[in-house]
Amino acid sequence: MSTTIKDLGEIELLNRLKRFMRCGQIDDDVAEINTINKSLLINTDLLVEKIHFSEEISNAKDIGWKCITTNISDLICSGSENIISFTVGLVLPPNTHWKWVENLYEGMREAMQEFGGEIIGGDCSCGETKMISITAIGTMNQLRLHRGNALPGDYIVSTGFHGLSRLGLALLRSEHLPSEVQISPKLINRAIKTHKRPYPAIEALKALKECKPDSTSWRAAGTDSSDGLIESIRGICESSDCQAVLSKTSILKDPDWPEDSIWDEWILNGGEDYELILTLPKEWAETLSKNFKRAHIIGFIKKGKPNISWDNLEPINIEQSSPFQHF
Amino acid sequence: MSTTIKDLGEIELLNRLKRFMRCGQIDDDVAEINTINKSLLINTDLLVEKIHFSEEISNAKDIGWKCITTNISDLICSGSENIISFTVGLVLPPNTHWKWVENLYEGMREAMQEFGGEIIGGDCSCGETKMISITAIGTMNQLRLHRGNALPGDYIVSTGFHGLSRLGLALLRSEHLPSEVQISPKLINRAIKTHKRPYPAIEALKALKECKPDSTSWRAAGTDSSDGLIESIRGICESSDCQAVLSKTSILKDPDWPEDSIWDEWILNGGEDYELILTLPKEWAETLSKNFKRAHIIGFIKKGKPNISWDNLEPINIEQSSPFQHF
Repeated sequence: MSTTIKDLGEIELLNRLKRFMRCGQIDDDVAEINTINKSLLINTDLLVEKIHFSEEISNAKDIGWKCITTNISDLICSGSENIISFTVGLVLPPNTHWKWVENLYEGMREAMQEFGGEIIGGDCSCGETKMISITAIGTMNQLRLHRGNALPGDYIVSTGFHGLSRLGLALLRSEHLPSEVQISPKLINRAIKTHKRPYPAIEALKALKECKPDSTSWRAAGTDSSDGLIESIRGICESSDCQAVLSKTSILKDPDWPEDSIWDEWILNGGEDYELILTLPKEWAETLSKNFKRAHIIGFIKKGKPNISWDNLEPINIEQSSPFQHF
Repeated sequence: MSTTIKDLGEIELLNRLKRFMRCGQIDDDVAEINTINKSLLINTDLLVEKIHFSEEISNAKDIGWKCITTNISDLICSGSENIISFTVGLVLPPNTHWKWVENLYEGMREAMQEFGGEIIGGDCSCGETKMISITAIGTMNQLRLHRGNALPGDYIVSTGFHGLSRLGLALLRSEHLPSEVQISPKLINRAIKTHKRPYPAIEALKALKECKPDSTSWRAAGTDSSDGLIESIRGICESSDCQAVLSKTSILKDPDWPEDSIWDEWILNGGEDYELILTLPKEWAETLSKNFKRAHIIGFIKKGKPNISWDNLEPINIEQSSPFQHF
């Protein structure tokens, strides 16, 4: 018979969680971070069952991986690739199986082994619906990416393909696809993997730092494309009070992505892709796209009231571009 | 007609929350903490509706106050009275009224005005049940209180009365009281206020630091009595691998507390009182109880397997002492 956390009781549950945390953590009320003249970046994200994850399409390990990596992506798109700590707040219905909790933390551990950091504390409670609240902490160095840092003349750079995660979700949910076309098994695998195991753009951030030309300062705008490619650019325009002009033909697609243009909607507004969306001085954008294979220039920033358009002057309906408004 | 957060939409909701946060915070993915050679203490706590709070007995402002102060209490009982930052993760059903959310943050702001700190970021999402996840950050100085720091020979010190919060809860819920005795209106007011607006022991911590005799080191054990007086001492015994001997007559009661001994159960195991429970070298314990009016010595620590007993050798049933196991 499978043990539930109700069977275990809170003390035994915490005991079992000990091995996922910094030594001695569970005996204490707070977590401690030692810093010597460092700035820390802190991020809190919530994942709520049925809103952000569903057990029908993701197992507990995948959910654990995802709740750590989505947080890491926020640190990375702010300039920190040095991830140091996490606190985990966990709400679980009393009939949750221990195995589920263990797998959740296993998934978190796998992500931390890949990207760094350790769980330094947290809290857990029962509740009607599963909920995971993660606070992630990283250290900052010379590059601080902000949505509000874009300037007219900047080039807009994407560090990878978009739409894969949305396709993966559709496949896992057996949704109708945008049109009836053949999809290669390779694309199916990549799409499902991208959805279940998002991979934050840590290599892209490292490349960005390494390839900065001496002639430019460390000023750059950045965010991740977790809410969709267009939505991420909209956020930059809004925070930087500027306009973006995008070139449709410059937005690279997975080599196996269907040709049918109706599929482009998922590239633009699919979401959950976790690429870096940057605006950089021309020279820096060009060295990055040369030095980091998947990085490509997709448009530029100009003066004007916040807006996005295609370079053929076709407008983009920004109102419809935000698939991740939860209320 | 009262506006719900569903009416507002997420963007407008975040806009309205801006004024509760550090300037410019909402345009960004992460929160930043600048430190110069400081150690930080981090604490995460969850408050779930129907588990930790109920709208029938607490309004949104009181809940806001409580979710900040319970976190602060964890920092204080670890040695930090210098509270710097909070992140707030908020899960709300779509039909939640904006006014409720505004009042929640007002209550948080009142607590931060009293104890320090500011909200530096967070996340919000919809969900079936209200849930608040707070991560609090404070800086550490010379005194680091741990549950595991107790040593045989230490005196056990409580920095205030216990049982008031439990009485307040009973009154608010119209529960049967332990026995039918007269309760003074003053006690009723104090009990309800203690339950609705818990006040962390920040003054006691300051006094503790100020009155340390030169002859002792900074070693001291501490926790708060949020889970009950006995449970807090049980935690110290467990983490420090020692025994506690308590003197029933030394445990001070509110001057208006009923004489009937059946009421003592709420003093011992009522919970949510947020006093500091310390174990200190004799000299330090004595100066503290002289210098800080409400501090009083209630027992001592001795060698042996983790256990608590009365000084008349009567045993205390530790198994029944933990009212706050949520699973």
